[in-house]
Amino acid sequence: MNTQPVLIDGQWTSSIGGETFSAVNPATRQFLPESFPVSPWAEVERAIDAADRAFQAVLGWPGSRFAAFLEKYADNIDRIADKLVAAAHAETGLPVEPRLKNVELPRTTSQLRQAAAAARDGSWATPTIDTKANIRSMLGQLGPVVVFGPNNFPFAFNGMSGGDFAAAVAAGNPVIAKGHSSHPLTTKLFGECAHEAAGASEMPNGFVQLIYRTSHHDGCQLVSHPKMGGCGYTGARETGLTLKRAADEAGKPIYLELSSINPVVILPGALAERLDALVDEFSSSCLMGAGQFCTNPGLVLLLADESTDKFVNAVASKFDAAPAGTLLGEGVLKHLKSGVDTLVKAGAERLTSGETQASDRICHANTLLRVTGAAFLNNSHALQTEAFGNCSLIVIAQDEAELQRVLGCLEGNLTGSIYTATNGADDNTYNRITPLLRQKVGRLLNDKMPTGVAVSSAMNHGGPFPATGHPGFTSVGIPAAIRRFAMLQCYDNVRKQRLPALLRDENPTGACRLIDGRWTTDTVI
Amino acid sequence: MNTQPVLIDGQWTSSIGGETFSAVNPATRQFLPESFPVSPWAEVERAIDAADRAFQAVLGWPGSRFAAFLEKYADNIDRIADKLVAAAHAETGLPVEPRLKNVELPRTTSQLRQAAAAARDGSWATPTIDTKANIRSMLGQLGPVVVFGPNNFPFAFNGMSGGDFAAAVAAGNPVIAKGHSSHPLTTKLFGECAHEAAGASEMPNGFVQLIYRTSHHDGCQLVSHPKMGGCGYTGARETGLTLKRAADEAGKPIYLELSSINPVVILPGALAERLDALVDEFSSSCLMGAGQFCTNPGLVLLLADESTDKFVNAVASKFDAAPAGTLLGEGVLKHLKSGVDTLVKAGAERLTSGETQASDRICHANTLLRVTGAAFLNNSHALQTEAFGNCSLIVIAQDEAELQRVLGCLEGNLTGSIYTATNGADDNTYNRITPLLRQKVGRLLNDKMPTGVAVSSAMNHGGPFPATGHPGFTSVGIPAAIRRFAMLQCYDNVRKQRLPALLRDENPTGACRLIDGRWTTDTVI
Repeated sequence: MNTQPVLIDGQWTSSIGGETFSAVNPATRQFLPESFPVSPWAEVERAIDAADRAFQAVLGWPGSRFAAFLEKYADNIDRIADKLVAAAHAETGLPVEPRLKNVELPRTTSQLRQAAAAARDGSWATPTIDTKANIRSMLGQLGPVVVFGPNNFPFAFNGMSGGDFAAAVAAGNPVIAKGHSSHPLTTKLFGECAHEAAGASEMPNGFVQLIYRTSHHDGCQLVSHPKMGGCGYTGARETGLTLKRAADEAGKPIYLELSSINPVVILPGALAERLDALVDEFSSSCLMGAGQFCTNPGLVLLLADESTDKFVNAVASKFDAAPAGTLLGEGVLKHLKSGVDTLVKAGAERLTSGETQASDRICHANTLLRVTGAAFLNNSHALQTEAFGNCSLIVIAQDEAELQRVLGCLEGNLTGSIYTATNGADDNTYNRITPLLRQKVGRLLNDKMPTGVAVSSAMNHGGPFPATGHPGFTSVGIPAAIRRFAMLQCYDNVRKQRLPALLRDENPTGACRLIDGRWTTDTVI
Repeated sequence: MNTQPVLIDGQWTSSIGGETFSAVNPATRQFLPESFPVSPWAEVERAIDAADRAFQAVLGWPGSRFAAFLEKYADNIDRIADKLVAAAHAETGLPVEPRLKNVELPRTTSQLRQAAAAARDGSWATPTIDTKANIRSMLGQLGPVVVFGPNNFPFAFNGMSGGDFAAAVAAGNPVIAKGHSSHPLTTKLFGECAHEAAGASEMPNGFVQLIYRTSHHDGCQLVSHPKMGGCGYTGARETGLTLKRAADEAGKPIYLELSSINPVVILPGALAERLDALVDEFSSSCLMGAGQFCTNPGLVLLLADESTDKFVNAVASKFDAAPAGTLLGEGVLKHLKSGVDTLVKAGAERLTSGETQASDRICHANTLLRVTGAAFLNNSHALQTEAFGNCSLIVIAQDEAELQRVLGCLEGNLTGSIYTATNGADDNTYNRITPLLRQKVGRLLNDKMPTGVAVSSAMNHGGPFPATGHPGFTSVGIPAAIRRFAMLQCYDNVRKQRLPALLRDENPTGACRLIDGRWTTDTVI
């Protein structure tokens, strides 16, 4: 069995490492045929050096060059859509339709094309001109970026094709993709499309590179390397924090998307008004894709009353009745089991019947847990353990004061939702509790489950630590996501012909610029 | 002798700590009469709790409330300008005129008023609206901010009145100021103005607080405390990195401005064209204020030729002839001596005559050092030691290739300057070396010394690590400086009457907002 090559310095080459791994089909628990290498440090270093050379080569290039690559790349992806969908289906167990083919792949190419449009126009860089002082500044190229993709979105968050990749390239940076080892063939197919597009759009060797796996130690060396500009990471908390420590120590920007349990508060008026609909809405959101979303509603906060019991019982029945979805891999199953164990040990009660039947698929029984507000407050750290998958913990607070205390001890999360009655019955409570939740989450929702993450200029897929590493940034949504992979570059008294195009008096791309305090697409007069 | 009170929770109160300190007049080396407390942890914690209560109280307030405070505060400062100038003069030795009275104090009140205008208008928060998806986001309040001011700008960077203070308040956050212990009376006078303004503008107790000194350990606990939102720090590298480590571990944003040696490249054509003018320009920039600027030109890069020797000799004569300025304190003198020692030990040759005469003032002989490019490359880490004060190191590269290697091993800096001939003689070299310097500095200058830092919307007073902790941010310049002390807050499907004013369909403050991809001051139609 041949080991698949890595993509380094413009060539698909055999890895110099001896260690290999294969992915597992979660629907059959069988190893897939392809074998992939673990890259040793010398190989990672070759990629870093090539990325650095590529960066030197593209310094000062106009955004249109990066846009051309991104667009060509998106076209290439469209051409092998069926192949990508088949590979991802085999590697992740995610359904072909609608999920992979009709939702995630179109989202992925759309992100690449949106990033291209932003790169072409240049407004994302917030070009700022002070004509009196003759000082000009913009967000400029940062340096090579390494992107670590997660397991749960083999397309839209893939290190080789996802939002971080698109953003890093749109900002003018080479990317080293560290594919997730649960879907290496999917990632390799993206690598082929990207490599072809890089050639066709005359990008230098080393502009896009791909490795599949490294040791944690080498990952830390990679994110903190002097030649690297920054890092985007989406994945498990522990690994992310290890990389963060290394990057922080070296003063390298690192943007993390870690765990999140996405609290959902459902107030009594909403339950009284539309209990059945809420049962459906919550159950679907929590069990969709076996709950393997960063924005899965893993914590539900309710006030004790009669409808609450009805709601909880109805959800438990739904959970028991619904088939258990296929999980992405054995690692997910292991973490889910251990997460549920931690929650149960910390005092949560199982409301669902429980044991998963032995199966050829990797799966876990849909699991609903319950705890009182008082018990939650007694052990709030453990009871915020993420059980990534088809599991949720319901906290029942005795009264609003207790609910407020529960909200007060929440960690940072990506999202927080509040459901209220349409007739205003919950409005006073809403007004009192919202400030508590607002400061803990990146995205606040009303009457909506957090699962969907629209690719919108106004999206925030971010939030306070430990949901991410910095509460000021989002990983989804253009232009904001692009700004992460840039450094602020000021030009003071620099001669006009030496300025980057976006800061000259003329404005050939029609970028929106802040000129003397006013946002405008005008030229400098 | 009474110990001065701290300002905590809306009251000037005696410190509970037993330890005290007094400032020294650097012009006389005599202790100043006032005694100030070192705050123990329990006192710092009281300030944190009060700041948290203040933050809860001001959550959701419109920017106009913070603007009113900032404007009232600036007016109060104007009223006691003479008193402030006298105190700062005694504590820092900086000249009354023009520096303190005509430059730094007006700059300080101007920053406060610019921040107020930005807070009133709200555009700084980049309000973003996606009308189709009904998703809206903006930069919102972060939480209590602690500001550590440096020794070298007793007004414009003071923890209680400077750029970080103004930015943190404009973003709607309470501030705990940690005054620099070299000018505590100046800081206390600001505290009085701020306290009075807070009362007059009905800010809650604990919105502005002041402590003078803590242990490093308590500083670390402060910046990483769960109730704190973030930190602004300007000062010495070692202390800054200690605080950074603590804040990073807790996932708290920290914005640092650390050391910088601000490389200045003077190319042969410029020297041939205007040698005398360059001698004057460089010497003035380097000796002004005894060189105690974050943007002091501490490293000059030249190519070996005849004019280079002339330039170096002329600068050395100027340095010897000019009186040595008064340094800010014994600590600055100690660090300057040790910095010069490190540079000399690493191979730099002293070009100035050297020994400082014993004096009643705290001062150090103007010092010019020289090293060859080859020697620099051999020991580039030590030869980038900051000698903060009236000292600069000249590196003479043998040829352009060596100059490029020198540029290639520079650390991150706030600024980098390149001087070239006006007739185009240096243009080819400029084009080859600029990309190397550009990526190492926040602000690139042409034919201009870096010392001045204009308060401009296009300013970048920032740069790659270790000049700061993150290359994407500036501490000077509005609106960008304000955005540091904010978190991205998204509202997804949130009912209209529950949205913050800046995200509603109406646009009462006339803020510039990104609506469906277009920057506009329009209302949502």
